[in-house]
Amino acid sequence: MPEQKSYHLECTGAALETVKQHSDAQDITLFGSCFCPFVQRVWVAMEYLGVPYKYCGNFAVGEVDPYKKPAELLEVSPKGLVPGLKLHKYTPPRGLNESTVILEYLEDVAAKGSLLPADPYARALVRLQCDHVSRSLVPAFYRFLQAQEARVQIECGKDFHAALENLVTLFERMEREIVQSGGASGAGEQRALSAGLGLWFENGDLNLSDVIVGPWIYRASNVLKHYRGFELPAGNKFTAWITRLFAHPAFKVTCSTEELYLDSYERYAENRPNTSQVANAINSGKPLP
Amino acid sequence: MPEQKSYHLECTGAALETVKQHSDAQDITLFGSCFCPFVQRVWVAMEYLGVPYKYCGNFAVGEVDPYKKPAELLEVSPKGLVPGLKLHKYTPPRGLNESTVILEYLEDVAAKGSLLPADPYARALVRLQCDHVSRSLVPAFYRFLQAQEARVQIECGKDFHAALENLVTLFERMEREIVQSGGASGAGEQRALSAGLGLWFENGDLNLSDVIVGPWIYRASNVLKHYRGFELPAGNKFTAWITRLFAHPAFKVTCSTEELYLDSYERYAENRPNTSQVANAINSGKPLP
Repeated sequence: MPEQKSYHLECTGAALETVKQHSDAQDITLFGSCFCPFVQRVWVAMEYLGVPYKYCGNFAVGEVDPYKKPAELLEVSPKGLVPGLKLHKYTPPRGLNESTVILEYLEDVAAKGSLLPADPYARALVRLQCDHVSRSLVPAFYRFLQAQEARVQIECGKDFHAALENLVTLFERMEREIVQSGGASGAGEQRALSAGLGLWFENGDLNLSDVIVGPWIYRASNVLKHYRGFELPAGNKFTAWITRLFAHPAFKVTCSTEELYLDSYERYAENRPNTSQVANAINSGKPLP
Repeated sequence: MPEQKSYHLECTGAALETVKQHSDAQDITLFGSCFCPFVQRVWVAMEYLGVPYKYCGNFAVGEVDPYKKPAELLEVSPKGLVPGLKLHKYTPPRGLNESTVILEYLEDVAAKGSLLPADPYARALVRLQCDHVSRSLVPAFYRFLQAQEARVQIECGKDFHAALENLVTLFERMEREIVQSGGASGAGEQRALSAGLGLWFENGDLNLSDVIVGPWIYRASNVLKHYRGFELPAGNKFTAWITRLFAHPAFKVTCSTEELYLDSYERYAENRPNTSQVANAINSGKPLP
Protein backbone atom coordinates (compact mmCIF):
# COMPACT_ATOMS: atom_id res chain seq x y z
CA MET A 1 0.00 0.00 0.00
CA PRO A 2 1.48 3.37 -1.02
CA GLU A 3 2.21 5.87 1.70
CA GLN A 4 -0.62 8.30 2.42
CA LYS A 5 0.11 11.95 1.86
CA SER A 6 -0.91 14.55 4.41
CA TYR A 7 -1.53 18.26 4.13
CA HIS A 8 1.37 20.67 4.01
CA LEU A 9 1.97 23.12 6.85
CA GLU A 10 3.96 25.71 4.95
CA CYS A 11 3.48 27.57 1.66
CA THR A 12 5.78 26.89 -1.28
CA GLY A 13 6.76 28.83 -4.41
CA ALA A 14 5.38 32.33 -4.93
CA ALA A 15 3.15 32.10 -1.85
CA LEU A 16 6.20 31.36 0.36
CA GLU A 17 7.91 34.51 -0.94
CA THR A 18 4.79 36.52 -0.10
CA VAL A 19 4.65 35.05 3.41
CA LYS A 20 8.28 36.11 3.97
CA GLN A 21 7.45 39.67 2.89
CA HIS A 22 4.59 39.80 5.38
CA SER A 23 6.25 38.65 8.58
CA ASP A 24 6.34 42.04 10.34
CA ALA A 25 3.64 43.25 12.73
CA GLN A 26 0.83 45.23 11.12
CA ASP A 27 -2.64 46.49 12.10
CA ILE A 28 -4.11 43.22 10.77
CA THR A 29 -2.87 39.67 11.30
CA LEU A 30 -4.21 37.08 8.86
CA PHE A 31 -4.40 33.58 10.36
CA GLY A 32 -4.10 31.21 7.43
CA SER A 33 -3.29 27.76 6.25
CA CYS A 34 -1.26 27.14 3.12
CA PHE A 35 -3.71 25.09 1.04
CA CYS A 36 -7.04 26.51 2.26
CA PRO A 37 -9.09 28.16 -0.50
CA PHE A 38 -11.20 30.16 1.98
CA VAL A 39 -7.95 31.74 3.24
CA GLN A 40 -6.79 32.38 -0.31
CA ARG A 41 -9.93 34.47 -0.95
CA VAL A 42 -9.01 36.85 1.85
CA TRP A 43 -5.31 36.82 0.99
CA VAL A 44 -5.93 37.77 -2.66
CA ALA A 45 -8.27 40.60 -1.59
CA MET A 46 -5.67 42.01 0.83
CA GLU A 47 -3.04 41.96 -1.90
CA TYR A 48 -5.39 43.59 -4.40
CA LEU A 49 -6.69 46.26 -2.03
CA GLY A 50 -3.23 47.02 -0.65
CA VAL A 51 -4.29 46.37 2.94
CA PRO A 52 -1.15 45.99 5.14
CA TYR A 53 -1.12 42.63 6.95
CA LYS A 54 1.05 40.13 8.75
CA TYR A 55 0.61 36.54 7.54
CA CYS A 56 0.51 33.96 10.27
CA GLY A 57 0.22 30.47 8.80
CA ASN A 58 0.72 26.95 9.99
CA PHE A 59 -2.71 26.59 11.53
CA ALA A 60 -3.72 22.99 11.22
CA VAL A 61 -7.00 23.53 9.42
CA GLY A 62 -7.34 19.79 9.00
CA GLU A 63 -7.85 19.24 12.70
CA VAL A 64 -11.52 18.55 13.40
CA ASP A 65 -11.00 18.36 17.16
CA PRO A 66 -11.59 21.89 18.53
CA TYR A 67 -9.43 21.08 21.57
CA LYS A 68 -6.43 20.86 19.29
CA LYS A 69 -6.97 24.36 17.87
CA PRO A 70 -4.51 27.04 19.00
CA ALA A 71 -6.07 29.43 21.55
CA GLU A 72 -4.83 32.37 19.46
CA LEU A 73 -7.00 31.24 16.53
CA LEU A 74 -10.06 30.41 18.66
CA GLU A 75 -9.95 33.96 20.04
CA VAL A 76 -10.61 35.47 16.62
CA SER A 77 -12.54 32.59 15.00
CA PRO A 78 -14.86 30.76 17.44
CA LYS A 79 -15.20 27.60 15.30
CA GLY A 80 -11.41 27.39 15.00
CA LEU A 81 -11.62 27.76 11.23
CA VAL A 82 -9.26 29.79 9.06
CA PRO A 83 -9.28 32.45 7.76
CA GLY A 84 -9.36 34.62 10.85
CA LEU A 85 -8.31 38.24 11.24
CA LYS A 86 -6.90 39.83 14.37
CA LEU A 87 -7.49 43.58 14.26
CA HIS A 88 -4.83 45.26 16.40
CA LYS A 89 -6.07 48.80 15.89
CA TYR A 90 -8.74 48.19 18.50
CA THR A 91 -8.06 48.02 22.26
CA PRO A 92 -8.40 45.21 23.14
CA PRO A 93 -7.81 43.68 19.69
CA ARG A 94 -10.90 42.31 17.92
CA GLY A 95 -11.33 39.20 15.79
CA LEU A 96 -13.19 38.46 12.59
CA ASN A 97 -13.95 35.16 10.83
CA GLU A 98 -15.89 33.81 7.80
CA SER A 99 -14.20 34.55 4.47
CA THR A 100 -17.16 36.30 2.81
CA VAL A 101 -17.76 38.52 5.87
CA ILE A 102 -14.05 39.39 5.99
CA LEU A 103 -14.13 40.33 2.29
CA GLU A 104 -17.00 42.80 2.88
CA TYR A 105 -15.08 44.24 5.85
CA LEU A 106 -11.92 44.70 3.77
CA GLU A 107 -14.00 46.39 1.05
CA ASP A 108 -15.40 48.76 3.73
CA VAL A 109 -12.02 49.70 5.23
CA ALA A 110 -9.73 49.64 2.17
CA ALA A 111 -8.12 53.04 1.61
CA LYS A 112 -7.59 52.40 -2.10
CA GLY A 113 -9.38 50.35 -4.70
CA SER A 114 -12.60 48.37 -4.57
CA LEU A 115 -13.74 44.89 -5.53
CA LEU A 116 -17.26 46.03 -6.43
CA PRO A 117 -18.65 48.27 -9.17
CA ALA A 118 -20.07 51.65 -8.12
CA ASP A 119 -23.44 51.18 -9.86
CA PRO A 120 -25.96 49.46 -7.51
CA TYR A 121 -27.39 47.16 -10.20
CA ALA A 122 -23.94 46.09 -11.41
CA ARG A 123 -23.02 45.45 -7.74
CA ALA A 124 -26.14 43.29 -7.43
CA LEU A 125 -25.15 41.22 -10.47
CA VAL A 126 -21.68 40.64 -8.94
CA ARG A 127 -23.34 39.61 -5.67
CA LEU A 128 -25.55 37.14 -7.60
CA GLN A 129 -22.35 35.55 -8.94
CA CYS A 130 -20.85 35.40 -5.44
CA ASP A 131 -24.03 33.90 -3.99
CA HIS A 132 -24.02 31.19 -6.66
CA VAL A 133 -20.35 30.36 -6.00
CA SER A 134 -20.71 30.09 -2.23
CA ARG A 135 -24.01 28.23 -2.19
CA SER A 136 -23.67 25.93 -5.21
CA LEU A 137 -20.26 25.80 -6.87
CA VAL A 138 -18.13 25.36 -3.73
CA PRO A 139 -20.21 22.51 -2.22
CA ALA A 140 -20.33 20.86 -5.68
CA PHE A 141 -16.50 20.94 -5.78
CA TYR A 142 -16.22 19.00 -2.51
CA ARG A 143 -18.99 16.53 -3.35
CA PHE A 144 -17.11 15.73 -6.59
CA LEU A 145 -13.70 15.43 -4.95
CA GLN A 146 -14.98 13.29 -2.06
CA ALA A 147 -17.15 10.97 -4.19
CA GLN A 148 -15.73 7.42 -4.16
CA GLU A 149 -17.97 5.25 -6.37
CA ALA A 150 -17.56 5.73 -10.12
CA ARG A 151 -21.30 6.27 -10.62
CA VAL A 152 -21.41 9.01 -7.98
CA GLN A 153 -18.22 10.60 -9.33
CA ILE A 154 -19.77 10.88 -12.78
CA GLU A 155 -22.94 12.45 -11.38
CA CYS A 156 -21.03 14.88 -9.14
CA GLY A 157 -18.67 15.79 -12.00
CA LYS A 158 -21.71 16.76 -14.06
CA ASP A 159 -23.04 18.86 -11.16
CA PHE A 160 -19.72 20.69 -10.81
CA HIS A 161 -19.58 21.32 -14.54
CA ALA A 162 -23.16 22.64 -14.45
CA ALA A 163 -22.22 25.00 -11.60
CA LEU A 164 -19.38 26.40 -13.75
CA GLU A 165 -21.78 26.79 -16.70
CA ASN A 166 -24.25 28.63 -14.45
CA LEU A 167 -21.50 31.01 -13.38
CA VAL A 168 -20.77 31.72 -17.04
CA THR A 169 -24.48 32.41 -17.57
CA LEU A 170 -24.30 35.01 -14.79
CA PHE A 171 -21.17 36.56 -16.37
CA GLU A 172 -23.06 36.73 -19.68
CA ARG A 173 -26.00 38.41 -17.94
CA MET A 174 -23.58 41.13 -16.75
CA GLU A 175 -22.23 41.42 -20.30
CA ARG A 176 -25.74 41.77 -21.74
CA GLU A 177 -27.30 44.01 -19.12
CA ILE A 178 -24.41 46.31 -18.20
CA VAL A 179 -21.56 46.24 -20.72
CA GLN A 180 -23.49 45.98 -23.99
CA SER A 181 -26.21 48.40 -22.89
CA GLY A 182 -23.52 50.93 -22.05
CA GLY A 183 -24.00 51.12 -18.31
CA ALA A 184 -26.73 52.12 -15.91
CA SER A 185 -28.29 54.83 -18.02
CA GLY A 186 -26.25 55.34 -21.16
CA ALA A 187 -23.00 54.83 -23.05
CA GLY A 188 -21.31 57.71 -21.24
CA GLU A 189 -21.18 55.73 -18.04
CA GLN A 190 -19.53 52.69 -19.54
CA ARG A 191 -15.98 53.69 -18.69
CA ALA A 192 -16.82 54.49 -15.07
CA LEU A 193 -18.67 51.19 -14.79
CA SER A 194 -15.87 48.97 -16.01
CA ALA A 195 -14.30 48.99 -12.51
CA GLY A 196 -15.44 46.02 -10.46
CA LEU A 197 -17.00 44.10 -13.35
CA GLY A 198 -14.35 41.40 -13.16
CA LEU A 199 -11.75 39.57 -15.21
CA TRP A 200 -14.38 37.89 -17.39
CA PHE A 201 -14.18 41.11 -19.42
CA GLU A 202 -11.07 41.61 -21.48
CA ASN A 203 -10.51 45.11 -20.09
CA GLY A 204 -11.83 44.28 -16.64
CA ASP A 205 -9.91 44.01 -13.40
CA LEU A 206 -10.18 41.60 -10.48
CA ASN A 207 -13.50 41.85 -8.61
CA LEU A 208 -15.32 40.22 -5.71
CA SER A 209 -16.65 37.25 -7.66
CA ASP A 210 -13.20 36.49 -9.17
CA VAL A 211 -11.80 36.50 -5.64
CA ILE A 212 -14.62 34.34 -4.28
CA VAL A 213 -14.44 31.65 -6.98
CA GLY A 214 -10.75 31.87 -7.97
CA PRO A 215 -9.30 29.46 -5.39
CA TRP A 216 -11.68 26.65 -6.47
CA ILE A 217 -11.07 27.25 -10.18
CA TYR A 218 -7.37 26.93 -9.43
CA ARG A 219 -7.86 23.69 -7.46
CA ALA A 220 -10.11 22.38 -10.23
CA SER A 221 -7.20 22.94 -12.64
CA ASN A 222 -4.80 20.85 -10.58
CA VAL A 223 -6.50 18.80 -7.81
CA LEU A 224 -9.67 17.81 -9.72
CA LYS A 225 -7.63 17.24 -12.87
CA HIS A 226 -5.22 14.93 -11.03
CA TYR A 227 -7.67 12.97 -8.87
CA ARG A 228 -10.81 13.01 -11.06
CA GLY A 229 -9.48 13.57 -14.58
CA PHE A 230 -11.54 16.76 -14.71
CA GLU A 231 -11.08 19.29 -17.50
CA LEU A 232 -12.28 22.87 -17.16
CA PRO A 233 -14.68 24.07 -19.91
CA ALA A 234 -12.75 24.57 -23.14
CA GLY A 235 -14.47 27.66 -24.60
CA ASN A 236 -12.21 30.52 -25.69
CA LYS A 237 -13.82 33.03 -23.34
CA PHE A 238 -13.58 30.68 -20.37
CA THR A 239 -9.94 29.92 -21.10
CA ALA A 240 -9.14 33.63 -21.52
CA TRP A 241 -10.83 34.36 -18.17
CA ILE A 242 -8.88 31.77 -16.19
CA THR A 243 -5.65 32.79 -17.93
CA ARG A 244 -6.21 36.39 -16.76
CA LEU A 245 -7.22 35.17 -13.30
CA PHE A 246 -4.24 32.85 -12.72
CA ALA A 247 -1.82 35.50 -14.09
CA HIS A 248 -3.26 38.36 -12.03
CA PRO A 249 -0.51 39.67 -9.68
CA ALA A 250 -2.74 39.57 -6.57
CA PHE A 251 -3.76 35.97 -7.29
CA LYS A 252 -0.38 34.67 -8.44
CA VAL A 253 1.51 35.72 -5.31
CA THR A 254 -0.84 33.63 -3.13
CA CYS A 255 -0.32 30.39 -5.07
CA SER A 256 1.96 27.59 -3.91
CA THR A 257 3.43 24.96 -6.24
CA GLU A 258 1.16 22.24 -7.63
CA GLU A 259 2.67 19.49 -5.45
CA LEU A 260 1.42 21.24 -2.29
CA TYR A 261 -2.19 21.09 -3.49
CA LEU A 262 -1.99 17.52 -4.80
CA ASP A 263 -0.52 16.28 -1.51
CA SER A 264 -2.86 18.31 0.69
CA TYR A 265 -6.06 17.19 -1.08
CA GLU A 266 -5.30 13.46 -1.18
CA ARG A 267 -7.24 13.11 2.10
CA TYR A 268 -10.32 14.64 0.43
CA ALA A 269 -9.93 12.58 -2.75
CA GLU A 270 -9.84 9.38 -0.66
CA ASN A 271 -12.56 10.77 1.64
CA ARG A 272 -10.61 9.74 4.74
CA PRO A 273 -12.50 10.05 8.06
CA ASN A 274 -12.11 13.40 9.86
CA THR A 275 -10.40 15.11 6.95
CA SER A 276 -11.92 18.47 7.93
CA GLN A 277 -15.12 20.12 9.16
CA VAL A 278 -15.86 20.96 5.52
CA ALA A 279 -15.45 17.32 4.44
CA ASN A 280 -17.63 16.09 7.32
CA ALA A 281 -20.39 18.55 6.41
CA ILE A 282 -20.36 17.30 2.80
CA ASN A 283 -20.52 13.66 3.93
CA SER A 284 -23.53 14.35 6.17
CA GLY A 285 -25.43 16.48 3.62
CA LYS A 286 -25.27 19.49 5.94
CA PRO A 287 -24.31 23.09 5.04
CA LEU A 288 -20.60 23.96 5.09
CA PRO A 289 -19.40 25.21 8.50
CA MET B 1 -58.36 10.40 5.93
CA PRO B 2 -58.62 14.15 6.61
CA GLU B 3 -58.51 16.48 3.64
CA GLN B 4 -55.03 17.72 2.76
CA LYS B 5 -54.50 21.45 2.97
CA SER B 6 -52.70 23.32 0.23
CA TYR B 7 -50.88 26.63 0.22
CA HIS B 8 -52.79 29.86 0.06
CA LEU B 9 -52.59 32.11 -2.97
CA GLU B 10 -53.55 35.40 -1.35
CA CYS B 11 -52.43 37.26 1.78
CA THR B 12 -54.78 37.66 4.73
CA GLY B 13 -55.04 40.09 7.66
CA ALA B 14 -52.53 42.94 7.91
CA ALA B 15 -50.56 41.71 4.88
CA LEU B 16 -53.69 41.85 2.71
CA GLU B 17 -54.24 45.49 3.70
CA THR B 18 -50.65 46.26 2.75
CA VAL B 19 -51.05 44.53 -0.61
CA LYS B 20 -54.11 46.68 -1.33
CA GLN B 21 -52.14 49.84 -0.54
CA HIS B 22 -49.42 48.78 -2.99
CA SER B 23 -51.43 47.98 -6.11
CA ASP B 24 -50.40 51.05 -8.15
CA ALA B 25 -47.49 51.06 -10.61
CA GLN B 26 -44.14 52.10 -9.10
CA ASP B 27 -40.47 52.04 -10.12
CA ILE B 28 -40.16 48.61 -8.51
CA THR B 29 -42.53 45.65 -8.76
CA LEU B 30 -42.10 42.97 -6.09
CA PHE B 31 -43.11 39.49 -7.26
CA GLY B 32 -44.15 37.63 -4.15
CA SER B 33 -46.07 34.77 -2.69
CA CYS B 34 -48.14 35.15 0.45
CA PHE B 35 -46.49 32.57 2.73
CA CYS B 36 -42.90 32.68 1.44
CA PRO B 37 -40.38 33.79 4.09
CA PHE B 38 -37.76 34.74 1.47
CA VAL B 39 -40.30 37.19 0.03
CA GLN B 40 -41.13 38.50 3.49
CA ARG B 41 -37.46 39.46 4.01
CA VAL B 42 -37.56 41.76 0.99
CA TRP B 43 -41.04 43.04 1.79
CA VAL B 44 -40.09 44.04 5.36
CA ALA B 45 -36.95 45.82 4.09
CA MET B 46 -38.96 47.80 1.51
CA GLU B 47 -41.42 48.87 4.18
CA TYR B 48 -38.62 49.84 6.58
CA LEU B 49 -36.52 51.69 4.01
CA GLY B 50 -39.55 53.45 2.51
CA VAL B 51 -38.83 52.17 -1.00
CA PRO B 52 -41.93 52.67 -3.20
CA TYR B 53 -43.11 49.38 -4.72
CA LYS B 54 -46.03 47.62 -6.32
CA TYR B 55 -46.81 44.21 -4.81
CA CYS B 56 -47.61 41.51 -7.29
CA GLY B 57 -48.51 38.27 -5.52
CA ASN B 58 -50.17 35.03 -6.39
CA PHE B 59 -47.08 33.38 -7.82
CA ALA B 60 -47.33 29.69 -7.18
CA VAL B 61 -44.01 29.27 -5.43
CA GLY B 62 -44.93 25.68 -4.67
CA GLU B 63 -44.70 24.68 -8.30
CA VAL B 64 -41.50 22.75 -8.90
CA ASP B 65 -42.09 22.43 -12.62
CA PRO B 66 -40.39 25.42 -14.29
CA TYR B 67 -42.70 25.11 -17.29
CA LYS B 68 -45.59 26.11 -15.04
CA LYS B 69 -43.89 29.34 -13.92
CA PRO B 70 -45.33 32.58 -15.31
CA ALA B 71 -43.11 34.09 -18.04
CA GLU B 72 -43.24 37.43 -16.22
CA LEU B 73 -41.54 35.89 -13.17
CA LEU B 74 -38.97 33.91 -15.17
CA GLU B 75 -37.91 37.15 -16.86
CA VAL B 76 -36.73 38.64 -13.57
CA SER B 77 -35.86 35.43 -11.68
CA PRO B 78 -34.32 32.75 -13.93
CA LYS B 79 -35.03 29.85 -11.51
CA GLY B 80 -38.66 30.96 -11.26
CA LEU B 81 -38.29 31.54 -7.53
CA VAL B 82 -39.81 34.42 -5.59
CA PRO B 83 -38.88 37.04 -4.51
CA GLY B 84 -38.10 38.77 -7.78
CA LEU B 85 -37.88 42.47 -8.49
CA LYS B 86 -38.72 44.18 -11.77
CA LEU B 87 -36.90 47.51 -11.98
CA HIS B 88 -38.87 49.78 -14.28
CA LYS B 89 -36.51 52.74 -14.05
CA TYR B 90 -34.22 51.07 -16.57
CA THR B 91 -34.98 50.79 -20.31
CA PRO B 92 -35.63 47.96 -20.93
CA PRO B 93 -36.66 47.02 -17.37
CA ARG B 94 -34.17 44.85 -15.45
CA GLY B 95 -34.78 41.98 -13.08
CA LEU B 96 -33.22 40.94 -9.78
CA ASN B 97 -33.59 37.75 -7.74
CA GLU B 98 -32.19 36.09 -4.57
CA SER B 99 -33.49 37.64 -1.34
CA THR B 100 -30.08 38.42 0.20
CA VAL B 101 -28.82 40.05 -3.02
CA ILE B 102 -32.03 42.09 -3.28
CA LEU B 103 -31.57 43.26 0.33
CA GLU B 104 -28.06 44.56 -0.43
CA TYR B 105 -29.43 46.30 -3.54
CA LEU B 106 -32.21 47.98 -1.55
CA GLU B 107 -29.64 49.09 1.05
CA ASP B 108 -27.57 50.62 -1.80
CA VAL B 109 -30.47 52.50 -3.43
CA ALA B 110 -32.60 53.49 -0.41
CA ALA B 111 -32.97 57.27 -0.16
CA LYS B 112 -33.61 57.16 3.58
CA GLY B 113 -32.58 54.83 6.37
CA SER B 114 -30.21 51.89 6.45
CA LEU B 115 -30.31 48.33 7.72
CA LEU B 116 -26.60 48.30 8.56
CA PRO B 117 -24.48 50.17 11.13
CA ALA B 118 -22.03 52.77 9.82
CA ASP B 119 -18.99 51.36 11.66
CA PRO B 120 -17.24 48.71 9.49
CA TYR B 121 -16.60 46.30 12.38
CA ALA B 122 -20.21 46.54 13.63
CA ARG B 123 -21.33 45.95 10.03
CA ALA B 124 -19.14 42.85 9.92
CA LEU B 125 -20.72 41.50 13.12
CA VAL B 126 -24.20 41.99 11.60
CA ARG B 127 -23.02 40.17 8.46
CA LEU B 128 -21.75 37.28 10.63
CA GLN B 129 -25.26 36.98 12.05
CA CYS B 130 -26.79 37.05 8.55
CA ASP B 131 -24.32 34.45 7.29
CA HIS B 132 -25.20 32.13 10.17
CA VAL B 133 -28.94 32.53 9.55
CA SER B 134 -28.74 31.83 5.81
CA ARG B 135 -26.27 28.97 5.99
CA SER B 136 -27.31 27.19 9.19
CA LEU B 137 -30.54 28.36 10.80
CA VAL B 138 -32.75 28.40 7.68
CA PRO B 139 -31.76 24.89 6.45
CA ALA B 140 -32.15 23.60 10.04
CA PHE B 141 -35.73 24.98 10.07
CA TYR B 142 -36.70 22.97 6.98
CA ARG B 143 -34.91 19.78 8.08
CA PHE B 144 -36.88 19.95 11.34
CA LEU B 145 -40.22 20.67 9.67
CA GLN B 146 -39.77 17.98 7.00
CA ALA B 147 -38.47 15.26 9.35
CA GLN B 148 -41.01 12.42 9.61
CA GLU B 149 -39.60 9.83 12.03
CA ALA B 150 -39.76 10.72 15.74
CA ARG B 151 -36.05 10.04 16.23
CA VAL B 152 -35.08 12.34 13.36
CA GLN B 153 -37.52 15.01 14.52
CA ILE B 154 -35.91 15.05 17.97
CA GLU B 155 -32.43 15.33 16.47
CA CYS B 156 -33.45 18.07 14.01
CA GLY B 157 -35.32 19.95 16.74
CA LYS B 158 -32.09 20.03 18.76
CA ASP B 159 -30.19 21.29 15.69
CA PHE B 160 -32.70 24.09 15.15
CA HIS B 161 -32.57 25.04 18.81
CA ALA B 162 -28.76 25.08 18.66
CA ALA B 163 -28.89 27.36 15.60
CA LEU B 164 -31.06 29.81 17.58
CA GLU B 165 -28.62 29.63 20.51
CA ASN B 166 -25.71 30.33 18.16
CA LEU B 167 -27.52 33.39 16.85
CA VAL B 168 -27.92 34.62 20.41
CA THR B 169 -24.18 34.06 20.94
CA LEU B 170 -23.53 36.32 17.94
CA PHE B 171 -25.93 38.97 19.35
CA GLU B 172 -24.04 38.77 22.67
CA ARG B 173 -20.76 39.21 20.81
CA MET B 174 -22.12 42.47 19.37
CA GLU B 175 -23.24 43.50 22.86
CA ARG B 176 -19.79 42.77 24.33
CA GLU B 177 -17.61 44.12 21.55
CA ILE B 178 -19.58 47.17 20.39
CA VAL B 179 -22.24 48.28 22.85
CA GLN B 180 -20.46 47.66 26.16
CA SER B 181 -17.11 48.91 24.91
CA GLY B 182 -18.79 52.13 23.81
CA GLY B 183 -18.29 51.82 20.08
CA ALA B 184 -15.41 51.69 17.67
CA SER B 185 -13.05 53.95 19.56
CA GLY B 186 -14.77 55.30 22.65
CA ALA B 187 -17.97 56.02 24.55
CA GLY B 188 -18.68 59.17 22.53
CA GLU B 189 -19.52 57.11 19.48
CA GLN B 190 -22.08 54.92 21.18
CA ARG B 191 -25.12 56.94 20.18
CA ALA B 192 -24.09 57.13 16.52
CA LEU B 193 -23.40 53.40 16.51
CA SER B 194 -26.78 52.31 17.86
CA ALA B 195 -28.30 52.58 14.35
CA GLY B 196 -28.24 49.26 12.57
CA LEU B 197 -27.38 47.18 15.64
CA GLY B 198 -30.78 45.52 15.62
CA LEU B 199 -33.82 44.86 17.80
CA TRP B 200 -31.87 42.58 20.16
CA PHE B 201 -30.94 45.84 21.88
CA GLU B 202 -33.68 47.55 23.86
CA ASN B 203 -33.05 50.89 22.16
CA GLY B 204 -32.13 49.37 18.81
CA ASP B 205 -34.09 49.49 15.58
CA LEU B 206 -34.68 46.88 12.88
CA ASN B 207 -31.51 45.83 11.04
CA LEU B 208 -30.39 43.45 8.32
CA SER B 209 -30.10 40.38 10.55
CA ASP B 210 -33.56 40.97 12.06
CA VAL B 211 -34.94 41.12 8.52
CA ILE B 212 -33.02 38.04 7.40
CA VAL B 213 -34.06 35.81 10.31
CA GLY B 214 -37.45 37.34 11.24
CA PRO B 215 -39.68 35.35 8.84
CA TRP B 216 -38.35 32.00 10.20
CA ILE B 217 -38.66 33.09 13.83
CA TYR B 218 -42.28 33.97 13.06
CA ARG B 219 -42.91 30.60 11.39
CA ALA B 220 -41.20 28.86 14.30
CA SER B 221 -43.72 30.56 16.61
CA ASN B 222 -46.71 29.23 14.69
CA VAL B 223 -45.84 26.50 12.13
CA LEU B 224 -43.16 24.67 14.17
CA LYS B 225 -45.23 25.10 17.34
CA HIS B 226 -48.29 23.59 15.67
CA TYR B 227 -46.67 20.73 13.71
CA ARG B 228 -43.67 19.91 15.94
CA GLY B 229 -44.68 21.18 19.40
CA PHE B 230 -41.67 23.49 19.27
CA GLU B 231 -41.22 26.26 21.83
CA LEU B 232 -38.89 29.17 21.19
CA PRO B 233 -36.19 29.73 23.85
CA ALA B 234 -37.79 31.13 26.99
CA GLY B 235 -35.11 33.56 28.21
CA ASN B 236 -36.25 37.11 29.02
CA LYS B 237 -33.92 38.72 26.50
CA PHE B 238 -34.98 36.34 23.72
CA THR B 239 -38.67 36.92 24.47
CA ALA B 240 -38.16 40.71 24.55
CA TRP B 241 -36.38 40.53 21.18
CA ILE B 242 -39.13 38.58 19.40
CA THR B 243 -41.79 40.79 20.98
CA ARG B 244 -40.07 43.87 19.53
CA LEU B 245 -39.59 42.08 16.19
CA PHE B 246 -43.19 40.86 15.78
CA ALA B 247 -44.55 44.28 16.87
CA HIS B 248 -42.27 46.31 14.58
CA PRO B 249 -44.45 48.25 12.11
CA ALA B 250 -42.42 47.14 9.05
CA PHE B 251 -42.66 43.48 10.10
CA LYS B 252 -46.27 43.50 11.30
CA VAL B 253 -47.74 44.84 8.06
CA THR B 254 -46.25 41.91 6.10
CA CYS B 255 -47.82 39.21 8.30
CA SER B 256 -50.92 37.25 7.36
CA THR B 257 -53.14 35.48 9.87
CA GLU B 258 -51.90 32.28 11.55
CA GLU B 259 -54.28 30.03 9.58
CA LEU B 260 -52.56 30.96 6.31
CA TYR B 261 -49.19 29.73 7.57
CA LEU B 262 -50.56 26.56 9.18
CA ASP B 263 -52.40 25.61 5.97
CA SER B 264 -49.54 26.54 3.65
CA TYR B 265 -46.89 24.56 5.56
CA GLU B 266 -48.86 21.32 5.96
CA ARG B 267 -47.18 20.06 2.76
CA TYR B 268 -43.76 20.61 4.34
CA ALA B 269 -44.77 19.08 7.66
CA GLU B 270 -45.96 15.94 5.86
CA ASN B 271 -42.96 16.11 3.50
CA ARG B 272 -45.16 15.54 0.46
CA PRO B 273 -43.34 14.92 -2.83
CA ASN B 274 -42.61 18.03 -4.91
CA THR B 275 -43.61 20.46 -2.19
CA SER B 276 -41.06 23.00 -3.44
CA GLN B 277 -37.52 23.39 -4.76
CA VAL B 278 -36.47 24.23 -1.17
CA ALA B 279 -38.08 21.05 0.20
CA ASN B 280 -36.48 18.92 -2.54
CA ALA B 281 -33.03 20.38 -1.79
CA ILE B 282 -33.42 19.53 1.91
CA ASN B 283 -34.51 15.96 1.09
CA SER B 284 -31.48 15.41 -1.14
CA GLY B 285 -28.93 17.00 1.22
CA LYS B 286 -28.12 19.67 -1.35
CA PRO B 287 -27.80 23.44 -0.78
CA LEU B 288 -31.00 25.49 -0.95
CA PRO B 289 -31.77 26.78 -4.46
